[in-house]
Amino acid sequence: MEFLKMQGLGNDFVVVDAYRQELPEDLGSLAQKVCHRQFGIGADGLVLVLPSEKAAVKMRIFNADGSEPEMCGNGIRCLAKYVYESGLCPRTEFTVETLAGVLRPELMLEKGRITGVKVDMGEPRLSPDRIPVLFAGDKVVGQPLEVQGEKYVVTAVSMGNPHCLIFVDDVSQTPVKSLGPLIEVHPLFPAKINVEFVEIVNKKEVKMRVWERGAGETLACGTGACATVVACALNGKTDREITVHLLGGDLILEWAPNNHVFMTGPAEAVFEGRYFI
Amino acid sequence: MEFLKMQGLGNDFVVVDAYRQELPEDLGSLAQKVCHRQFGIGADGLVLVLPSEKAAVKMRIFNADGSEPEMCGNGIRCLAKYVYESGLCPRTEFTVETLAGVLRPELMLEKGRITGVKVDMGEPRLSPDRIPVLFAGDKVVGQPLEVQGEKYVVTAVSMGNPHCLIFVDDVSQTPVKSLGPLIEVHPLFPAKINVEFVEIVNKKEVKMRVWERGAGETLACGTGACATVVACALNGKTDREITVHLLGGDLILEWAPNNHVFMTGPAEAVFEGRYFI
Repeated sequence: MEFLKMQGLGNDFVVVDAYRQELPEDLGSLAQKVCHRQFGIGADGLVLVLPSEKAAVKMRIFNADGSEPEMCGNGIRCLAKYVYESGLCPRTEFTVETLAGVLRPELMLEKGRITGVKVDMGEPRLSPDRIPVLFAGDKVVGQPLEVQGEKYVVTAVSMGNPHCLIFVDDVSQTPVKSLGPLIEVHPLFPAKINVEFVEIVNKKEVKMRVWERGAGETLACGTGACATVVACALNGKTDREITVHLLGGDLILEWAPNNHVFMTGPAEAVFEGRYFI
Repeated sequence: MEFLKMQGLGNDFVVVDAYRQELPEDLGSLAQKVCHRQFGIGADGLVLVLPSEKAAVKMRIFNADGSEPEMCGNGIRCLAKYVYESGLCPRTEFTVETLAGVLRPELMLEKGRITGVKVDMGEPRLSPDRIPVLFAGDKVVGQPLEVQGEKYVVTAVSMGNPHCLIFVDDVSQTPVKSLGPLIEVHPLFPAKINVEFVEIVNKKEVKMRVWERGAGETLACGTGACATVVACALNGKTDREITVHLLGGDLILEWAPNNHVFMTGPAEAVFEGRYFI
């Protein structure tokens, strides 16, 4: 199987072009094998580029545990760069079908080289039944959540996939690896949840660490950064355009007046290869 | 840079043929970049195949932190398979120059397919100054070692690189990740040390977990398995031919009458690729 290994802020993906080759039927188990760091290629996720009936291309993404999330912000930046550079689509802006709807990445070019990718990540969903979270009311902003006897204050946002955000004083001291998995499987989150710990630097900058559903702590999560700008604005913590500092680097997020969230960040190809299956 | 990604019992290597391409001068820093799991290819080590004046080929190996160990048992099995299959050397037994001396891997073939690689890993060195460890006497077998107020009983063996072995009742309960780094840098080990925790199953079988100098806990360590059969025999715990069960799989070890240690185990190619540097 031919592949391209890419990364966006250290969130890394094996990108496979399913236009040009046939894949095994069980994609979840393919992802588990391919993503294994020692016995496979090693990645946070497997990104498949497929033909679409409603958009220029279709993206499917599988986590290292074989589960299929609705979408992945860093993954779609990598996919967009691949689609352009491989010649599948020669435009710098095109549509991508995902389980979270049709999205529209835009390539930033400088002297023919891609310097970043801006993605319209769509509108946040705030109503509890659409996230889904089992809370009362029309949205979950600064609500209490009890985890093993400790009380936390959470904000819940869906960007196609569900996020639970918690403001902390210092992300470097936050026990992401022990607290993340407890919140991920909390009974109030029927589809499980991604957990973001957010430290406010000022009105235009925050630091964030993320526990990803099915993947553990990762260096960056695009949809988590989108949920962050929405949660920060809803709680009056920042402006609606901010830089989010993640372990893997920076993203620029804007929650635009049309209610769409736009994310701009890097995508890099690291190596290309042929996997022996 | 062209490479082959290989693994032996989950101890994984980027194998680079330096006959066929030029490499950057600073190999330690190349290894750090290449071995990074998100931003590089991802591996425990970088194995270079080079011309030799004293053997069929020369192996140099670098850990993920850029350090250069004397030798690596799993690495040399991968290298041996590569050298044979790439056509660099058409024999099933040949010599390899390493920093730990000239070694002689032997390929086990079944219907033209390599099923395992047996390596003469040379003679163990037991005298403290040759390991090196700062203990009195002619060898270190069942000697006390104090680590942060706790007493351990250790046996020290060099297989070209230094090993400190500790017998435990249950490797699954041993705090390898907290105890390993403390012993690695203990002042009695002037070149630092690899640490093996060994559980005796019976006279022919042991379980072992390893903390590798410069790499942390790995799924397997070939020279550590060699040191294990020597330490087990010296302490009267097992026969001189044993199976060592590691997290990544099994190795067969024999401390032969001629004082050489022979190791037989698997080596697999996972993918080939081109790294963008």
